[in-house]
Amino acid sequence: MKVEIIGVKGIPEVHRGSKLAELIIDSIKKMGIELQNGDIIVVTQKIVSKAEGRLIKIDEIIPSKLAIRMGRLFKKDPRLMEVILNEAKRIVKMARAIIIVETKHGFICANGGVDQSNIPKGFVSLLPVNPDRSAKRIRDDIKRLLGIDVAVIISDTFGRPWREGHVDVAIGVAGLKPLIDYRGQKDTHGYELKVTMMAIADELASAAELVMGKLNNIPVAIIRGYPYPKGEGSARELVRRASKDLFR
Amino acid sequence: MKVEIIGVKGIPEVHRGSKLAELIIDSIKKMGIELQNGDIIVVTQKIVSKAEGRLIKIDEIIPSKLAIRMGRLFKKDPRLMEVILNEAKRIVKMARAIIIVETKHGFICANGGVDQSNIPKGFVSLLPVNPDRSAKRIRDDIKRLLGIDVAVIISDTFGRPWREGHVDVAIGVAGLKPLIDYRGQKDTHGYELKVTMMAIADELASAAELVMGKLNNIPVAIIRGYPYPKGEGSARELVRRASKDLFR
Repeated sequence: MKVEIIGVKGIPEVHRGSKLAELIIDSIKKMGIELQNGDIIVVTQKIVSKAEGRLIKIDEIIPSKLAIRMGRLFKKDPRLMEVILNEAKRIVKMARAIIIVETKHGFICANGGVDQSNIPKGFVSLLPVNPDRSAKRIRDDIKRLLGIDVAVIISDTFGRPWREGHVDVAIGVAGLKPLIDYRGQKDTHGYELKVTMMAIADELASAAELVMGKLNNIPVAIIRGYPYPKGEGSARELVRRASKDLFR
Repeated sequence: MKVEIIGVKGIPEVHRGSKLAELIIDSIKKMGIELQNGDIIVVTQKIVSKAEGRLIKIDEIIPSKLAIRMGRLFKKDPRLMEVILNEAKRIVKMARAIIIVETKHGFICANGGVDQSNIPKGFVSLLPVNPDRSAKRIRDDIKRLLGIDVAVIISDTFGRPWREGHVDVAIGVAGLKPLIDYRGQKDTHGYELKVTMMAIADELASAAELVMGKLNNIPVAIIRGYPYPKGEGSARELVRRASKDLFR
């Protein structure tokens, strides 16, 4: 079994209203590659947020008293703090200039996904309002334009407890099930697997990050040859339910 | 940029004393593939533990009083509980039949890495004593036998807080640096990246899992075309220092 991960070069700067599926198709065509049924397209959150107008001008933010107080406490720009608080459903942990929040989507991440890298200066970017829907839009557009059935993953870079360094994970999916459930199946020794659900959408996002990097200007990757479980699927399945989570 | 992930088929059942580098080289040769300088070989922990004799017969374990009491409390075989306690440096969390421990290596994982899948019945497997050394041995043996310079990652399947499903991570590395540190570098908009260290060894382990699966009998993968940062490296760099970890 062989899986290929191909970085898509030449995606132009994305602006509010940019049609991502068309930009992706054009760039892939220019590379001399033909999309195939069963390909997975991984798209970084940043260009999705740009296309969906999820950039905010820092100068136009008026911080609340709470944001000003917290900004002082955590040595952060109070306007940035205001945006983070707006994105948060709940604050999970605050310490040492790190603010970990649960976003409205249910994702638990630093700064609620609010970020300043790889966007014009003076702006901050927010996560897409509904990353599954963003993924579905790209998938549906590719289907309409090329007649080809691909899965789409919107990826973002998250930290995690206990382990150093960040990894890319899936925050939106379309056309694939994000988890493979092995429970009840038997291994080669006849042992019934008891717990293993694999978060393949996260593993695919991490695999795509290898060709994207942070400075290569490659916001899109094609993953080819992976027989993913097809289906509607939602990245919300990757959010552990509070009742099952020991670390809320 | 294109990265390939190739599942290595035909690795025979591994026993204590099996020479993994030789088994891997033979299987790759039979697939008609030639190893190249710069390839990354990802090997699942399970066959490393088997080769290093890290299987314990459950019948031979005598549980302590503590293990018996905890086994009753958490509805686990007290002998299994005994092994888990032996592997633990510290218990991080116990609840609902889930025991998360910090292993002697510093890894934080369920059951201290003690596992019963994909090994003969009646046994449990422990993590390798020093997975970096296990990786180095395979790397050095391949160098000696073929004259080829590969990096080696020992991978294992870990759960994580907040997100559903498991992913494969690196528990041992040789010949590559497990983290890429982007701090201080500038993105295409001239914004200086402040925090992003990418855990590429974990992303590589996750990518390899895609071809391994849990039931395919593919315990080894080759990752080709990824320009990893060379160097000594240790998977211990992936363990967040207690002083920096908000979730100890």
